[in-house]
Amino acid sequence: MRAMLIIADGMGDRLIPELGNGKIGKTPLEATETPSLDELARRGINGLVDVIRPGIIPGSDTAHLSLFGYDAFKTYSGRGALEALGVGLQVKKGDVAFRCNLATVENGVVIDRRAGRISEEGDELIKVLQGIRSDISPDTKIIVKHTVEHRCAMILSGPGISPKVSSTDPKKKGEKIARSVPLEETKAAYKTSMLLNELTDEFCNILSAHPVNTKRKAQGLPPANCVLFRGGGTIPDVVPLPELYKSSCAFIAPSSLVAGVAIAVGMKPIEVPEATGSYDTNHRAKAMNALAALESNEFVFVHFKPTDNASHDGDVAMKQKMIQKVDELVEIILDANMPDLHIAVCADHCTPLRVREHTADPVPLVIMGSQVRIDDIKVFDERSAAKGALQRLRGHDIMPILMNFIGHQKMFGA
Amino acid sequence: MRAMLIIADGMGDRLIPELGNGKIGKTPLEATETPSLDELARRGINGLVDVIRPGIIPGSDTAHLSLFGYDAFKTYSGRGALEALGVGLQVKKGDVAFRCNLATVENGVVIDRRAGRISEEGDELIKVLQGIRSDISPDTKIIVKHTVEHRCAMILSGPGISPKVSSTDPKKKGEKIARSVPLEETKAAYKTSMLLNELTDEFCNILSAHPVNTKRKAQGLPPANCVLFRGGGTIPDVVPLPELYKSSCAFIAPSSLVAGVAIAVGMKPIEVPEATGSYDTNHRAKAMNALAALESNEFVFVHFKPTDNASHDGDVAMKQKMIQKVDELVEIILDANMPDLHIAVCADHCTPLRVREHTADPVPLVIMGSQVRIDDIKVFDERSAAKGALQRLRGHDIMPILMNFIGHQKMFGA
Repeated sequence: MRAMLIIADGMGDRLIPELGNGKIGKTPLEATETPSLDELARRGINGLVDVIRPGIIPGSDTAHLSLFGYDAFKTYSGRGALEALGVGLQVKKGDVAFRCNLATVENGVVIDRRAGRISEEGDELIKVLQGIRSDISPDTKIIVKHTVEHRCAMILSGPGISPKVSSTDPKKKGEKIARSVPLEETKAAYKTSMLLNELTDEFCNILSAHPVNTKRKAQGLPPANCVLFRGGGTIPDVVPLPELYKSSCAFIAPSSLVAGVAIAVGMKPIEVPEATGSYDTNHRAKAMNALAALESNEFVFVHFKPTDNASHDGDVAMKQKMIQKVDELVEIILDANMPDLHIAVCADHCTPLRVREHTADPVPLVIMGSQVRIDDIKVFDERSAAKGALQRLRGHDIMPILMNFIGHQKMFGA
Repeated sequence: MRAMLIIADGMGDRLIPELGNGKIGKTPLEATETPSLDELARRGINGLVDVIRPGIIPGSDTAHLSLFGYDAFKTYSGRGALEALGVGLQVKKGDVAFRCNLATVENGVVIDRRAGRISEEGDELIKVLQGIRSDISPDTKIIVKHTVEHRCAMILSGPGISPKVSSTDPKKKGEKIARSVPLEETKAAYKTSMLLNELTDEFCNILSAHPVNTKRKAQGLPPANCVLFRGGGTIPDVVPLPELYKSSCAFIAPSSLVAGVAIAVGMKPIEVPEATGSYDTNHRAKAMNALAALESNEFVFVHFKPTDNASHDGDVAMKQKMIQKVDELVEIILDANMPDLHIAVCADHCTPLRVREHTADPVPLVIMGSQVRIDDIKVFDERSAAKGALQRLRGHDIMPILMNFIGHQKMFGA
């Protein structure tokens, strides 16, 4: 038996007055035709999920840690390492990783946090930062990699370093580069913040003199003469899913942060180039690749991002369109007619269209498969799920429940 | 956006046969006409709440710690300090506070635990105990204050003291004054219990010779010649609500213990002299003051005590009358018609009329406001709430959920 978990990012919502015929309103899921999701609901078991805990607003990283079965309060250790993993970098236990921006600085003041959204030239610029050694911490290995656009990742390896340091990113232009300070009273935190400040100066010196920047200035473009560090983190200390459930686990997730969480818990990435994470994502290619992945994996996770994009944009029609894409994705999975497959569909959080930010409202969950005790819910949406037999669960309950259905959960006790 | 939490003390109940027309019975909430509470239910989202945990009977103090969003098991630290805060005394972190009774003792035997319910004279008696120093613990500052009737509070300040000591109150008359013993194997607990025993003797000596007592004896009244100590506690170590939610928080609660919890978590008291905590409380004045408080506070907590008094009295008709007062209080809030207000109504525990003590049965909760996904519950009572979309929550979930609705909750993760 096999299981597939499909997460539609930010799909949960609140009542939108214009979607209701009367004055109460409907949620986008209630107002959208979703025949395949409704088929799951009808043939499955339904409930509501507090992804972290009632009233706690999940981030994308903490939400997925929880959805993969872990206690996010105990295992979450910052965004940096997860994002670095997600863009394909190696981050080992003990390494501290940061998200970095190439930025433009003038007299210590950040005048463009994205260096004019510099892109391809980033590779060439960042290359010169390799092999740098720190005076403050000579035994720390420093790796900087350009990823996309103005973004990079930096990984520090070695003893006595800590992710508990403040960012050097002032967050808005016109402000001075922030000096990193320790966020806990440990020698490692003091040392790491001093190291970040040293590297800030050192990188500025090297990049300012770089031919790419000389050329950019000649073209009237902002030079990428500084690297801002933020989101320091380590990889979460977890027992990986394949070990926990004696299962081979794979995932499709174009969003680097979600991909990073999936890699951190031991899932293998499946590349689907047409799956972009944007409105134009090829959800059919995603479904076909997910089905193919089931041939060699007991568990496949599929992440669908653009429901969240539409929500952050406050675009009601686009959110409905993206929900229909989720429905079509599910249709392809259903059409494959795999009797030994359990399918779960959920969201990682609500992003209500009228709020345009993550909120803590619980999200609907459906699980369909041969082993479930089918309840009498007929449609998939937030208020119907509230009456389902799964009742109200936590995000970290979903994986153990799925693994129980497919026979990959072990007994606790004797 | 703003939020108001209304707690009707002990309002939850069990089935009362005489309130049902048939044999099953009804709860007082089911049997009482409550048009405004029902309007909340109809326009809101409903559920049941285990204030602490299923089957755990909440005290007034632990219930409110939980209802304000804290883990009562981790943060509760005795009644003494909360009660002292509630009567307007200053209790600092590390101070140990006791509830005290002025009592009558003869040859070491307590013959009246309340010294004939002595009242005004208490002030004059207690005044002579100020500035006393202990031989056993000379660096402990000792403050004793008369509050109401035979009641006082004592606050010990200084290093190396502990609330983990037994009471000196024998709990019934005719018994000897109890000797305090340590309740944990620490030097601080040994020292504090020795200090309590020393103060018991010292206070007896001073009070016995006091002119007020000479006069009382001449009048045939029992002398208040002893102070009994109980309920040692410290203030709970919590992050205050205003800091946690970047919100200004105020409360109306005439009950000193509940007021003490509210103060301990950082809420500002609003004095409403007509709000008495008794059957005659002016619930309309409470509602008007609560509405006024919303002008300068994001969160207002309103406590309504007399539902519990009627329950402890086992008075069915009075409990129904008090429930109607809660309903009228809610009516005034609803009539103010504030579109940005989220209103939550709950109880801190059940006090079933036939039990006349707190019980652990879950209590009904309703939350009404623009952001809730309205469910199909039409009336506010225990058995209707059990079918609501909020399902079954814990007391400490209510505050995060309310703060999520009004946009004062922060994201966990990125």
